[in-house]
This record gives sequence, C-alpha cells and structure tokens, in this order.
Amino acid sequence: MTAQLKTDANVETTANGAPVVAITMGDPAGIGPELILGSWRDIFDKTLARPLPTILPVVYGDPATIEKAKAFRPCSARVVEIASDFDRANPALGRPDVIPVVSCCDSSVSTVKLAEISAAGGDAAFRCVNRAIDAALSKQVDAIATGPLHKEALNLAGHHFPGHTEILASRCGTSAFGMALYLGGDSVASPGGLCIVHTTLHISMRKALDEVTTPNVLEKIRLVRRFMTTVLNGREPRIGVCALNCHAGDGGLFGDEEITIISPATRLAQAEGVDARGPFPADTLFLDAKNGLYDGIVAIYHDQGHIATKTIDMFGAVNVALGLPIIRTSVAHGVAFNLAGKGVATTRSMIEALRVAALFAIKHETP
Amino acid sequence: MTAQLKTDANVETTANGAPVVAITMGDPAGIGPELILGSWRDIFDKTLARPLPTILPVVYGDPATIEKAKAFRPCSARVVEIASDFDRANPALGRPDVIPVVSCCDSSVSTVKLAEISAAGGDAAFRCVNRAIDAALSKQVDAIATGPLHKEALNLAGHHFPGHTEILASRCGTSAFGMALYLGGDSVASPGGLCIVHTTLHISMRKALDEVTTPNVLEKIRLVRRFMTTVLNGREPRIGVCALNCHAGDGGLFGDEEITIISPATRLAQAEGVDARGPFPADTLFLDAKNGLYDGIVAIYHDQGHIATKTIDMFGAVNVALGLPIIRTSVAHGVAFNLAGKGVATTRSMIEALRVAALFAIKHETP
Repeated sequence: MTAQLKTDANVETTANGAPVVAITMGDPAGIGPELILGSWRDIFDKTLARPLPTILPVVYGDPATIEKAKAFRPCSARVVEIASDFDRANPALGRPDVIPVVSCCDSSVSTVKLAEISAAGGDAAFRCVNRAIDAALSKQVDAIATGPLHKEALNLAGHHFPGHTEILASRCGTSAFGMALYLGGDSVASPGGLCIVHTTLHISMRKALDEVTTPNVLEKIRLVRRFMTTVLNGREPRIGVCALNCHAGDGGLFGDEEITIISPATRLAQAEGVDARGPFPADTLFLDAKNGLYDGIVAIYHDQGHIATKTIDMFGAVNVALGLPIIRTSVAHGVAFNLAGKGVATTRSMIEALRVAALFAIKHETP
Repeated sequence: MTAQLKTDANVETTANGAPVVAITMGDPAGIGPELILGSWRDIFDKTLARPLPTILPVVYGDPATIEKAKAFRPCSARVVEIASDFDRANPALGRPDVIPVVSCCDSSVSTVKLAEISAAGGDAAFRCVNRAIDAALSKQVDAIATGPLHKEALNLAGHHFPGHTEILASRCGTSAFGMALYLGGDSVASPGGLCIVHTTLHISMRKALDEVTTPNVLEKIRLVRRFMTTVLNGREPRIGVCALNCHAGDGGLFGDEEITIISPATRLAQAEGVDARGPFPADTLFLDAKNGLYDGIVAIYHDQGHIATKTIDMFGAVNVALGLPIIRTSVAHGVAFNLAGKGVATTRSMIEALRVAALFAIKHETP
C-alpha cells in the first residue's frame, strides 16, 4: 500500500492529473465482481514489478454485489457508494482502502445467482457499461475498462448486441470501429507488446470472405499502426498482415484473395509510410509475432487472431475498442462461470486492461 | 552412448525386433541434413528424460551432403553409405557411431547452395522421400520420418505436390487420408499429448467451406480417435470438435454450419461410442486442449489447427500422415532457410517425429 495515498489530502497532491478510469462490474453471475476486489490493492501497489501508472479508479456496478463477493474474495477495502455526478476531486477516489462504486443496477440484480445465465444479470451488465459510457462521453471519466458480460444474458434482457464493442459503437455513433486484442510485454517477446486487429469480426466465415476488401484491410492497418505508435511512444510499429488462405494462398493455388485484395492493401499502406509487410501465412506470422518480430498484426477473421491470442496468453490479453471517441479496454476473457465464486480467477487481464486504458488516457489519445 | 550397441554382435541381440525407421534428408538447402547430425546421438541415448524406444534409423539422403554439414553441426558418428537393399541385420544399423545412408540423389545435389531455392534441392528431397516410400511399401523399413522439403523447390523440379502428405497419398493410392499434427506430452498439459486432425487442408478458404460435410467431419473424428487410442494404449480419447464460425456460430447468428453439418457429425460419432464433444469455439477449445482437457481435436480448416499448434509449441510438433498403409511422421516445421548452416536448429521436432514413428511401428499399427 502506498503511503502517500493514505490520506485525502495526499490524494489530491499525488493524483493530480491522474486519469479517472471507470471499471464496469460486468455480469454479476460471473467473475467480474471478484476481479474488482482481487485487483484493487494491486492497482495502487507501486512495488510491483510493473506497477500501473497512478489512476483514479471508479467502479460502475452494484455496491451490494461487490460487497457480497468479499465472502469468497477477501479484500480489506471498503465498498463506498458515490453519487453518479462525482467529480475527480472526490475524496473517495484514488484510495487503496476505498472502492468507490457508482450504483447502476435496479433491484433485480439481487436475484442473480452465481454462474447462472439470467436476464437480470445481462441487464445489470448492460446498465453498468451504459452508465460508464455516459460518463466517458461527458468526460467525467477519462477511460473505461469493462468487466466480462455474458452475451446470452444480455440478449435475454432484450439488449441485442454481439458484445461490448458493438454497444460502444452504437452509443458513440461510430461505424468505422475495430476491436484490438493487445498482449503486453509479459506475454510476448517484444517489450512493447503486440496489438492484433481483426478485419472482420462477429460474422459468419462465409460473410467474412465477402467483407475482406482492400479498403477494409487498409483501414485496419491504419488502426493498428495508430494504436502501437502511441504504445511505442512514437516509434513506427512493425506490422504484419495475415493471409486469408493457408500458405498465403501459395501463389494463387489455394485462393487469390492474397493477390487481389490483401497485397494491394499492404502496398497502399507502405506508400503511406507504414512499415507493413505481408500477407504472410497466419500460422507462422503469429509465431514470429510471439517471438518479437512484430508490434502489430492485422488478422483477417475473428478466430485467426483469437486462437493465437488465447493460446499465447489468454489471461494476459486485453480487448481494446478502436476508432471510438472514448477510451475503452476490457478483459479479454469471459464471465468464466466455471470459476465464479471460487475466488481464484486471475486478475492479470483486468490489470492489463487498466494499464492500457491509463496509457491512452495519460496521453490524451483514443486508441 | 549405450554400450550394448557398440559391437555388431550386440546390435543383433539388443535391437532384435526394433523397428527400422527411415529418416529422409529433405531439401539439402535447408536444415534437414544438420537435424540428422544433431539428433543422432540423442536417438540412442537412454539417459535422456524421455529416451526414444530402441529403433534402427536409416537415412535416405546424400552421404556427401550430410558429411559436409558436419562443418557447422559437429557429429562424431561416421557417415556410411549402405546398399539400398540392406536388411535389418545390416551391421551398420542401430549404432550411435555410424550414420547409415542410402544414397538417393544424382550428381546435381552437389550444386545445391544452403538457404537457396533450387530445382536440384527439390528433386533431391523428392528422390529421398520416394526411395523411403519404396522401402516402406516393401516392408524393408517399418516407418518413415521425413525431414523438411521446400514446396517451391519441389515444383521447380517438376514435382507438383502441395507437400509430403500428397506425395505419400499418391504413391500409396489412397484418397481418404488425413494429416495430423501431434504435440507430445512436453508441449501440452496432458501427458499423452494432443492430436489435431484437419477436416480440410491445402485448399482455399472458399473451397474449404464447401468441403466441410458431415461425413468428412465424422471421418476425421474417427481418424483422431484411432490415432490417440493407440497413443493412449487403448484408453478412449477425449475429442473436441472445432466450430467453423466464430463463437461456434452463436446459435446460427454467425453461420449455421455448426447446426447443420458439424453437430450431426459429433452426434454420429457419439452414437459409435466415441467421446466426441462440440462443436466449440476454436479459440477456447485449443486453450482447453493445451491445458489438458482433450486428447484429440478435429479442426475444420488448415490455419485453425496450425495457428494453435505453432503458437503452443511449433518445434515440439510432429506431422503425421493418417489413413496410409505405411507409417509416416515428419518434422512440423519447414526448411528454415534462415537457420540453415548455422548449426543451431533445434532437433526437438525430429526427435518427436521419430518417437511417434517408433510408437506405431512397435505396435504394428498405422496411424
């Protein structure tokens, strides 16, 4: 525990200019609430090998649910409800001994059972993220790190979105958005980490094949470049572009999208001064990236990037929304119903999500 | 070095019944020749943590090329050319101090330069594997472990095959063949390792979508079951089947192949008594498999299984031909021109390829 954060007076001094980061609770039936408890102390601990930058975390959730989770995830910090119109000088912020929570849910949240899919759980998760989006759009908070929600529960509650990213895009009125997976320097050989952006995401493979266009790939190259340029403090990132087909189509033998669609996008990016290479066979490209030869990867379809990320280091990965007017990161794992209530879920992804959120907030840039 | 293999008299005694395993040199421009030198001593070393079963390895290659590779990959064993009609009692077999080589190449092999694509290199690799196939079909050798070839060099030499597996299938007159990737117990959490079989392989993604049929998936489930039942000494393997679409199609939202094609295959397999589950989203399924929850995986397309295998442990992986009348394993990596001649390429995949070849040869079963 860092001494300088122990009194309110000190908070204002040391946290001066520190970004306010909203943490959403996610589905109360999942591991979201316990991740907040489990990570709270580490958020402030400057003696860690890779301490987080100083941030002012604020939870968007249900105070009672989080308090209840202490039964299986002990945490000495007090859960304190704060008004939704709090400001960054609020004395409850920036303290390792206080978890400030903006109460977002209605009474149905108390009916949610651990590890069970329910409309009440889905609705609670939806309310939390929506309130956090409100706060981010009004600049009350500087960034959002979201806990895991359950898509089926979300739909049961009448909120028909494939996931967080689409909720955010809808609320922000953005169509040209992307989703990045980011693996930090603990997960891959390159200290700056690895950013993976997907050309197509939550659609069938058949539709994905039709949506792979040169402008689409080029846009994703630009997104990954922008993201990693910020992470690398201005250094030009080394970007690898995945092929769609096995063996990168092998000169047209196994498909020609590499020749007709993806190579032109890479060349256009190069003409813009981007250090983009490919398309390369995805299996070897991800191995090279794991070994530190790339800072960014453009994947063509969902599973390409996700298989690599999860087998490399699922619980070190962060999900980042690209192209939105706000900063939003997320744990890359799900609600993990198999672990919910056991108090053992790792907080690594949550900590990394906060690290990336803080990094962009401090630089006043959106990913 | 095992003392009992030092004299010819002892070879016959101790190696009695040991399988003869052909090792093909692969493209002379790649790391194949040095892998033979680098692995030779370990093949016989019973003091290793996981020693190989006793085998009688015979190299199919070019004696001069292998001898030349000693310049960058020191090896005290003598390279000895043996007649192509050798028999298993040949005194040059089963000795750590002798590398018996069946000479397969013509004089053009001497023109091949390290790390360069050439017709001569492709032709040399093709000759080696063909001679080894001859020997396997006539039961002169019990199994084949192939070194890496370069597909472009192979094609330059006029041999138009996507890879080893298709050469083997063509020579063996088999169309219902498959290719498995096998990760041993050092690479995944399950001590028995993990076998991954692909429903479709060297075709475009568009064509792969059309070739995913219920009978095709069912056939691959049977192939992976048969393979792992042998590896697990008769225990029923736990098999996971990948979805084609992201999130396993999410109830039809992102494609319906899971509902119409893959689920029926899994159910048919279950009706046959197979412990097959799925389809599951490929990204989490491979993570579960890495963590030891499965013995076998059916992947739907090439990159699905290959991205997972290479990011989990590329150099521990073995490539195995399924459904052929002969036993054939292979290193899972390529010619690695970037490493050729440096003497540093790891022999792990070669050793594991020999282990799997030996395992099946000893049981007198084909994968």
